[in-house]
Amino acid sequence: MTTPSTGRVRMSPESRREQLLDLGTRLLATRTLDEVSIELLAEEAGISRGLLYHYFGNKQEFHAAVVRRAVEDIYAITAPRGIEDPLEQLAVSLGAYVDYVKENYTGYVSLIRAAAGGNEELRAIYQQARRALTDRIFEIAGAEQLAELGVVDSAATRLLVDGWAALVENVVVAWVEDPAGLSRDELLQRLALVLPAIVTR
Amino acid sequence: MTTPSTGRVRMSPESRREQLLDLGTRLLATRTLDEVSIELLAEEAGISRGLLYHYFGNKQEFHAAVVRRAVEDIYAITAPRGIEDPLEQLAVSLGAYVDYVKENYTGYVSLIRAAAGGNEELRAIYQQARRALTDRIFEIAGAEQLAELGVVDSAATRLLVDGWAALVENVVVAWVEDPAGLSRDELLQRLALVLPAIVTR
Repeated sequence: MTTPSTGRVRMSPESRREQLLDLGTRLLATRTLDEVSIELLAEEAGISRGLLYHYFGNKQEFHAAVVRRAVEDIYAITAPRGIEDPLEQLAVSLGAYVDYVKENYTGYVSLIRAAAGGNEELRAIYQQARRALTDRIFEIAGAEQLAELGVVDSAATRLLVDGWAALVENVVVAWVEDPAGLSRDELLQRLALVLPAIVTR
Repeated sequence: MTTPSTGRVRMSPESRREQLLDLGTRLLATRTLDEVSIELLAEEAGISRGLLYHYFGNKQEFHAAVVRRAVEDIYAITAPRGIEDPLEQLAVSLGAYVDYVKENYTGYVSLIRAAAGGNEELRAIYQQARRALTDRIFEIAGAEQLAELGVVDSAATRLLVDGWAALVENVVVAWVEDPAGLSRDELLQRLALVLPAIVTR
């Protein structure tokens, strides 16, 4: 959590770019995507806007890079932690996601709105991330477990799992705004249990 | 399905406005919301743009009126048809929704994108419509049936039902684009069965 230092030498352009993206993603936590401008990043990083344009090309590319980083972060924090029971593993991953949404609420909501709205580039990044998360769910469940549940890994099943992801996103964002009397644990159990209910007959 | 006639006299401004909205909604079926401009409506209705501005104020108000009409249409076509079994009733209503999305795909997708994106007025109209649909589901299920299932009509239950609505929207839009081997009946059964799975423990 160090702020990028401009004085350090011998930092590769790639590392510097990564460091700036870290900062951009942190700024996004409490700001909307539109509020995280190249101007703000320059000010916070203590470097010139010209240099930032050198790293990110333009505002749209900068935002795409920040969103890509944010979805990578979500993918990383929800990674399986070696819990044997798939449903328990799922609930733990969902818990990490819930905490992320809580801590990054303003930026996260603006990100999903931008992706759900008219921004085609952000939509593509977002859908790719959702597909990666879905793929991982199938890996976690494992072919054997799926067969036991009578679930076939088909296009139809993927369609329904993607619908479940939409449900999770919707419910978690609403829950963070107003928990409606549901404890975090109840929420996670409900969301995890819905998945097998959707994909099994 | 008659085109509005400009020659008819004694039509009240309200009826004329309704007629123009009918036309706007029909135009929306195969066009995005942005493509349904006041210019296009004027051309199709054979009246002046000036008169249309008189009825709708500006483009944003016109679009809000068209979207309001579209969600009213969805509410109407998915109305319960007196089927006793709540799950069967739900599947039939979902079927009407699926057919609507199919017939109005371009406009419907642009509408939900506009509502999910940054347009606050469209978002409000859309969320109000979703709330009305949710309310009706609780009415259809009936207090007795809910009690039998052990479902309490609480804020938490409503949160989950709204998540189910997000799932339905996501799955239906994707299914219309690519059915992924799921028949219409299978789709409706799956979507209907998910609802009790979400709200019961």
